[in-house]
Parts: sequence; C-alpha cells; structure tokens
Amino acid sequence: MKVLGISGSLRQGSYNTTVLRTAERLLPNDVQFELYDELKWLPPYDEDDDGDDAPVEVQRLRAALAGADAVLISTPEYNSSVPGQLKNALDWASRPIATNVLRNKPVAVVGASTGAFGAVWAQAEVRKSLAAMGARVVEGEVAFGHAHQHFDERGELTDEQLREQLQEVLESLLNSVQLRAAALA
Amino acid sequence: MKVLGISGSLRQGSYNTTVLRTAERLLPNDVQFELYDELKWLPPYDEDDDGDDAPVEVQRLRAALAGADAVLISTPEYNSSVPGQLKNALDWASRPIATNVLRNKPVAVVGASTGAFGAVWAQAEVRKSLAAMGARVVEGEVAFGHAHQHFDERGELTDEQLREQLQEVLESLLNSVQLRAAALA
Repeated sequence: MKVLGISGSLRQGSYNTTVLRTAERLLPNDVQFELYDELKWLPPYDEDDDGDDAPVEVQRLRAALAGADAVLISTPEYNSSVPGQLKNALDWASRPIATNVLRNKPVAVVGASTGAFGAVWAQAEVRKSLAAMGARVVEGEVAFGHAHQHFDERGELTDEQLREQLQEVLESLLNSVQLRAAALA
Repeated sequence: MKVLGISGSLRQGSYNTTVLRTAERLLPNDVQFELYDELKWLPPYDEDDDGDDAPVEVQRLRAALAGADAVLISTPEYNSSVPGQLKNALDWASRPIATNVLRNKPVAVVGASTGAFGAVWAQAEVRKSLAAMGARVVEGEVAFGHAHQHFDERGELTDEQLREQLQEVLESLLNSVQLRAAALA
C-alpha cells in the first residue's frame, strides 16, 4: 500500500511538511510513503493547456496521484482559505472531471499553522473541493495550531494528543483503502 | 480614477475576461481601466521567496494593485471554490499583511460559469479572503450563470438584467473610491 503526502506550504521549514514526515513515521512498516515534492513547479491551471499534451509537471502529478492508494494532505491557511498553489494542484488533478485520478481515492486532510486554529478553514475548503471532484474524504480533523510549539528542533512532534489524533486519521485513511479494495474484490 | 480588472480564468476565450471587457465599456469615460494580463506568469507563493527580492512578476502585481484606485475581479469556479492561481495572486498581494496593497482598497467581485450558478461559491471565497486581508469588499454580486448564453459572438452582453446588475456593482465600486477619498481628504 502506498500513501502520497502533499504539503500545501512550499517553504523549506514548513510545519506542514514536518507533519507529513511525522505521519510517515507513524504508518505501519508495510505502507510505503512518498512525499510529492514538485508542487512548486506546477504551472497554473489553464484549460487551453490541458488535454493529452498537458505540461509534463501536470502529467507527473496525475501519475503520482494515480499510483497512490491514498493521499494525505497537510495544509497551512492563507487569508482564511486554501493556499493558491495547493488549490491549483487540485484543479489540475480534477480534470477530466468524470475520470479524474482522485475520484473514489481515499484522502485525509490535516493542517498546521502558527496561529491558534491550525488552518481549519483551509482544511474545510480543501475537503469541499475534494468532495466536489469525487474523492473519498476521510473523516477526522487534526489542527496543529501554534505549530512552532509542538515540534522540537529535530522536527519531532512533542504533543502526545496531536500524535494520537494524527494516528487516528491515518488509521481511518488506511481503513478506507481496505474497505475500497474489499468492495472492488 | 483607475480600475484594475483581474480575470480568474487563464484561457483565451474566458467568459470572465469577457465580463471584464464588458465592465470596461460600462465605466464612465473619465475612468481608466486596465486588464491585469500577467496572472499566468505569477510563480506560486513561497514565503522563502518573499521580501525585498520577491520575483519580478510579484513586484509587478503589487505595483499594478497599488497603482489602481479600485479592483474588479471576475472569477470562474473550480471544484466548488476559487481557482488556485487567482488565490495565489491574492496570497502574494496579501503580504506583508499589515501594509498589503489591497488594505482599504475597494474591490468588487463578480463571476461567470457555464453552469447554472455563476461561480457564487468561488465569489464568496474570494470575498472572504479579501476581507481577511483588509480590502474594502464592495457589496453586490453578479452571477453570470450559463455564461455562453449571455454573450454574442463579438463578446457583447445580450442579457439586459445582467448588464444592469454589473452596472450597479460598478457604481458601488466607484462610490466606494469616492467615499474613501473624501474620508482621507
């Protein structure tokens, strides 16, 4: 089983990327984790550029999503909503709408911010868009508010409650993959 | 007085760009209108890239917004929300948050889609983000639903009711500029 992690923040020291690295360590050993690290190079969605000759970065994003059994997104919040470039990735992923690579794919959404609320509005907007494109959005929310206080200098999560919440969301995500596999069997 | 128009769609035949061209013709002769046509070239927001040495495209966006007395945004809706690249432009515009170029700037938001609802969710999300960054969001919504039915082949708006609604939003936008100027005088 393979989980693709997508961080909504592009900066090097991103807490959301740190959250994904934490999730990677919490996953069972037989689950492969891959961090999608090409978000910065994805061009803006333009319907005129889409189709069989879509930009190579778009083809690579779609292939990475298609090759994963589940997706874990960790997002910051910009201006009370989803970061533009994360939404741009979802916009590319959603086409063609009827057969898009996220349709029926289990996806979990968590978020981190240095403010109090842990990107809950951004998370909600990402879930809304995922649902609109037919993804199987896993229930459960983890809000890493005051994120800078919950990781030590090595990037280790020091908050036990948040670790348990993240673990629970990961279990829901893996369960969703197994339920889907069983339904298809 | 100068109004900057921003279309949330990048495709050549965009109905949202057509809406902005319609707005341009409805504005009084003494109001200058400029269409921001560099959205496609704006890099994704990365805090590591921001600051005095921000990418030139970002500096040009901020200068265009700073040089306008008011902004008119027309947006499509992607996956029940704002197009990623339009949100990305707002994310760049919003920094630094305390002195961002949209703070106290009158902004009106309309939208067009080929679906029934005229991008009302995308419009709402854009307004939410604008309010979060301190813009003066002008009241009034115009939803160009079934947009392909409301323009002729020359791009002329054929729906009288929509024209009146757009005219009203433009009047509110210009009034907001005058009220702000009077308050500062």
